Amino acid sequence: MDRAPDEPAKTRPAFARWLGTTNDVTRTFLAAGQIPDLINLAGGLPAPEVYPAAEIAEIARQVIARHPADTLGYGPIEGLPELRDAVAERYSSGTLKLSRANVLITTSGIQGLDVIGKVLLEEGGVIACQCPTYLGALDSWRSRMPAYRKLRLDSNDCDPHSLFAGAQFAYTVPNFSNPTGKLVGMAMRETLVDAAHRTGTWLLEDDPYGGLHYDSESLPHLIELSALRNPGAPYGGPVLHVRTLSKEVAPGLRIGWVIAAPEMIAALTLAKQGSDMCTSGITQRIALEALKGGLIEKIQPGVVALYRSRRDALCAAMAEHLASDFDWEIPSGGMFVWATARDSLLNTDILLKRGMEAGVCVTPSSVFDASGEDRRAIRINFTLNPPDRLREGVRRLATAVRALQANKS
Amino acid sequence: MDRAPDEPAKTRPAFARWLGTTNDVTRTFLAAGQIPDLINLAGGLPAPEVYPAAEIAEIARQVIARHPADTLGYGPIEGLPELRDAVAERYSSGTLKLSRANVLITTSGIQGLDVIGKVLLEEGGVIACQCPTYLGALDSWRSRMPAYRKLRLDSNDCDPHSLFAGAQFAYTVPNFSNPTGKLVGMAMRETLVDAAHRTGTWLLEDDPYGGLHYDSESLPHLIELSALRNPGAPYGGPVLHVRTLSKEVAPGLRIGWVIAAPEMIAALTLAKQGSDMCTSGITQRIALEALKGGLIEKIQPGVVALYRSRRDALCAAMAEHLASDFDWEIPSGGMFVWATARDSLLNTDILLKRGMEAGVCVTPSSVFDASGEDRRAIRINFTLNPPDRLREGVRRLATAVRALQANKS
Repeated sequence: MDRAPDEPAKTRPAFARWLGTTNDVTRTFLAAGQIPDLINLAGGLPAPEVYPAAEIAEIARQVIARHPADTLGYGPIEGLPELRDAVAERYSSGTLKLSRANVLITTSGIQGLDVIGKVLLEEGGVIACQCPTYLGALDSWRSRMPAYRKLRLDSNDCDPHSLFAGAQFAYTVPNFSNPTGKLVGMAMRETLVDAAHRTGTWLLEDDPYGGLHYDSESLPHLIELSALRNPGAPYGGPVLHVRTLSKEVAPGLRIGWVIAAPEMIAALTLAKQGSDMCTSGITQRIALEALKGGLIEKIQPGVVALYRSRRDALCAAMAEHLASDFDWEIPSGGMFVWATARDSLLNTDILLKRGMEAGVCVTPSSVFDASGEDRRAIRINFTLNPPDRLREGVRRLATAVRALQANKS
Repeated sequence: MDRAPDEPAKTRPAFARWLGTTNDVTRTFLAAGQIPDLINLAGGLPAPEVYPAAEIAEIARQVIARHPADTLGYGPIEGLPELRDAVAERYSSGTLKLSRANVLITTSGIQGLDVIGKVLLEEGGVIACQCPTYLGALDSWRSRMPAYRKLRLDSNDCDPHSLFAGAQFAYTVPNFSNPTGKLVGMAMRETLVDAAHRTGTWLLEDDPYGGLHYDSESLPHLIELSALRNPGAPYGGPVLHVRTLSKEVAPGLRIGWVIAAPEMIAALTLAKQGSDMCTSGITQRIALEALKGGLIEKIQPGVVALYRSRRDALCAAMAEHLASDFDWEIPSGGMFVWATARDSLLNTDILLKRGMEAGVCVTPSSVFDASGEDRRAIRINFTLNPPDRLREGVRRLATAVRALQANKS
């Protein structure tokens, strides 16, 4: 199509090999938005009605008018100093002492994972990874082609100390892990931190859902437990804490941060420089107002109440329609229910297709497994849809399960 | 500092090797902002007074209030469909036929370069690179450790066809190249496009300064010349056109785009998915209003007139104070003058230090050379400072040159 008639056909240079390892499930789901009346239980999307649009619109106008140089110019690679200070202050305690030097502002939580990969991974570098694993984390490291060791934190024979030894870093989502929705308990938190300190391996604590507790009390962050080793000293330990404002304010801000030892922040800054130079001053200033002006605290009770009621609606519908085919635990926070098929031969990659024919979309377990082997479970989101749609989605899913089982027998 | 008293010292896993190859000049310059009364002629910064702050503040308020789902939610990885359509329409002509499928919205022009590197570079992959080269491009590919072939487009024996053959891609800044400020002429543009079509190698056309012409007419984009091979057909050729709104509207938007063949856009989309998932809907919607509502056209004449007068002030001061030590051409657009020392032994890395002691900051040529060898030239920015500061900066630079030369003899 692009050749002049007299030119020979030329082969274009090959794409990098990692593109052959990628999945297109996320994009399939985005395309699913085109199917009429499809009920999307697959994504990790907040309920749009909780976005404080009127407040953010007015904040945006004010911060641009008042701070034109900060909002419209280039800013420091590490982030606006005031926002870094606000983040450091938010996490600091008598035990955990943080300053601006411990904070990198990132363009979303995913960028935090991307720059950590750039800093720590050569091709084939080893990650000890909570399994099943957040798909976005696997995506963010794919282009560096790492090797994975599976941390099965629920298993009795899981030994973090031996899995951490020799790994570049360990990856965990202690609060309501994506995809399983599980809260990592206090004993395992202490084991993970001890393993990081004893082996020297960096320990990545990804915490997008830390604000979404429905019936449980908060447990200490891994970085707080790490700081207990030298309480009150400026933090220089092995934990990297990654957070986003996507779940508590709005994904459209694309604002997150990494909290870590200053030497790690300096290296991550060099990686961010070549990634997008700096994060938008507009969205950083909006985030600063949200942190300082109490917007998060103002909207949080409503968000938690809404999501709790939706979790309850989903789990009630599942108990009615799916109890004979799946097992699950009711999550005490986060955005997801993880359901495992009783029939070990049920293939949830195929269930996804039958589900979409029935007008419902869930996420199959294969995408949360670095080796793609786990085909027995599904992740169901309860935050995006109101209760009647959740119930109808579960009914459709049950229809798809029956069709799949009938076909098989 | 992070060890309990009973723990042995542990070595942390090593950072990836590319961090040993990075430079910290950009960060040194950002730190230079702390030196009182320093005149910064080093960066590539727009004049803050040209930012249309009042207009953008009001646009921001309106787009968030009117489009809360688009601005505050997750959006498509490729960018908002309306913005992709607006970009495609802006570049389309009778010859160059573009659709949404040819456009990826990126979080700044640098992100465009980063995702191109992720898609096309394995470690050691070859780039045929206009030399000297934009520092940000070298930074964006550093973590993939490429090998460089130098395209010296001014040299009589430069042979793009042989340099392109076997390279993953070629990189050029045809309009007022960073750092040299030179406009690549029509004959060389045709040669570059011919080399890309004949060898099959991808050809990256980075165009941040395309809107900043002071005395010259625009020349056709490389992607337009490529489209001439098959005029009016949907574009599927080897050119990737990268643009940013940083120079024409405001860097704080962090909005750019890549225009390329649909197969390339699809691969870049997978790389962007793992980089930041999607670009902020707030800044995308502001960019869409700037493109559709005529904001760029409204502010452009004032920006061009201001920068032209600053270029003239800088070049007049250089003629007065630096003519005996440096040679340069007056650039017909862009943001920079590139000056080469007559004394082939003058080391501009050292001149940078003497200059900072004298209260002025310029960029030494070593950072624009992938091998770091070129020490004979400097890049001087004329857009950030008003004429009196430009004149004073040149006086200080001349003082530093004299000090350096006196010290040597």
